[in-house]
Amino acid sequence: MSSLLTAFLAGDVRALARAITLVESGDARGEVLLSSLRAERQNSSCLVIGMTGAPGAGKSTLTDALITSCRSLGARVAVLCVDPSSPFSGGAILGDRIRMGKHYQDSGVFVRSMASRGALGGLAKTTVSVLSLLEAFGFAYVFLETVGVGQSEVDIASVADHTVLVLTPAGGDAVQAFKAGIMEIADIFVVNKADLPGADRLMREIRAAQELGAHDEHTWFAPILQTIGSQAQGIPEILEAIGQHRAHLGSSGLQTRRLERARFELNAAIQEEARERAKHGQQNLLARISQGQITAREAALEVLQT
Amino acid sequence: MSSLLTAFLAGDVRALARAITLVESGDARGEVLLSSLRAERQNSSCLVIGMTGAPGAGKSTLTDALITSCRSLGARVAVLCVDPSSPFSGGAILGDRIRMGKHYQDSGVFVRSMASRGALGGLAKTTVSVLSLLEAFGFAYVFLETVGVGQSEVDIASVADHTVLVLTPAGGDAVQAFKAGIMEIADIFVVNKADLPGADRLMREIRAAQELGAHDEHTWFAPILQTIGSQAQGIPEILEAIGQHRAHLGSSGLQTRRLERARFELNAAIQEEARERAKHGQQNLLARISQGQITAREAALEVLQT
Repeated sequence: MSSLLTAFLAGDVRALARAITLVESGDARGEVLLSSLRAERQNSSCLVIGMTGAPGAGKSTLTDALITSCRSLGARVAVLCVDPSSPFSGGAILGDRIRMGKHYQDSGVFVRSMASRGALGGLAKTTVSVLSLLEAFGFAYVFLETVGVGQSEVDIASVADHTVLVLTPAGGDAVQAFKAGIMEIADIFVVNKADLPGADRLMREIRAAQELGAHDEHTWFAPILQTIGSQAQGIPEILEAIGQHRAHLGSSGLQTRRLERARFELNAAIQEEARERAKHGQQNLLARISQGQITAREAALEVLQT
Repeated sequence: MSSLLTAFLAGDVRALARAITLVESGDARGEVLLSSLRAERQNSSCLVIGMTGAPGAGKSTLTDALITSCRSLGARVAVLCVDPSSPFSGGAILGDRIRMGKHYQDSGVFVRSMASRGALGGLAKTTVSVLSLLEAFGFAYVFLETVGVGQSEVDIASVADHTVLVLTPAGGDAVQAFKAGIMEIADIFVVNKADLPGADRLMREIRAAQELGAHDEHTWFAPILQTIGSQAQGIPEILEAIGQHRAHLGSSGLQTRRLERARFELNAAIQEEARERAKHGQQNLLARISQGQITAREAALEVLQT
């Protein structure tokens, strides 16, 4: 165990991979390791960036281009891909590993896919723990990506320091985003596939929505960037905007975001624990609920007391 | 309170509406009322039917036609519409009330819309409580419908006795349903908009999938029905198939379904309670989590003990 910690602190990528596996599998040694890395996590200046947007918006291609851009600056990068829509697979997303193939030989790039099996609504508690490992390891950038939609978008924003919302001119993306209530989670808007017709209109729609919202002189107006991911156009500007948003947050803003992340992690842990407890010896309780002898709430209190 | 119970048992629809409001608002009198109605719930022969399928499949139109069909048999019908995708609205779905307008004058039809605000993933605990009220009130049929997708489909199947999965020939519905893992929740398949090209192919695809699955002589092969909802074609056949499925279930099968419903209700109640507890006095805990002084799991155990 102490040799794992030593190798981890020395920057051995295999030690990182092994640590993640321990955390993912719920091994107690994972928790011990996380505790041991407290100082490294505190002192980390890692930028945790959430990539959100509807399927097909081109998030993966953009992330890929962002990796290349970070690497040209000499910065080490990790990508964490989460598939919350798949309680069944219980495994990693092969596609993402293949997709990232071109960085495979580059020891400055670390890609990990995980399924958040059974996590209600989106990301799992383990996602945050894995994120903590990546921060402690010393990456300059961590990109967090999900293949899911809906709740997972909101979850990403709870967990990331900087949230990039990727939209495209096609298919009423902005309208969908408004309806889903995810416009307000964006720290940076990216209008991807900006060579398609409608890109300027989409920018105007986003800007109009921003101006409608409540704001004062301290409000961060999320910049609206245009990119063509497949041609790697507009990518350094995203990194620049992330830097500006970090400066805007300052240490107190960052602190607020980290408390938000802790809140997410706590809620996820509570639900996991509650679900775990509910699994055991409840057959008798279920019969009593279904016969109306006890209300579900009374049964819940009974379960939580055990 | 006892006058509400008396009016409820006498079949006063206003008493039902008031009881639902009490249950929805979390009023303790709602729980008392539910307990008082234990015998009525036990003796109810109400058929609880879940209507699932992608948005645009025509669920609402079908439900509307099913109401008419039930009414022509003299059966009293309730429809419960749930909007799990909307934690923001926190209100009823006006559209559904308008949609059901043509049954408005009919005292044998009861329509209620509810938003399951904040319920993770889909239906809320209160949905099941409201369902219990409708069963106790003596409706012959209760149709349960959500406007959501994904998790809410699975939730509906957990809560309903009979699940109708509505598909259309358009747009690879079957493939989507396979991918989402919801084919297996169907007790009855309805190929709606059967006048569109591709209806027969869709039927063959569903049948092929059924035959691939594990089955023996006790397996219920979900019948595959064709309908044109807008022309009310094929509707009585759905009611007939529901009756056959009820006979197939028998009392032991129905018992199993009811235990499944209780499990859903218990899990929802546990999560609600856990979330409630997590709200209070956690600012200090959050700071300790974010500084790595305590793991999220340790914090969760602390919260659950309070």
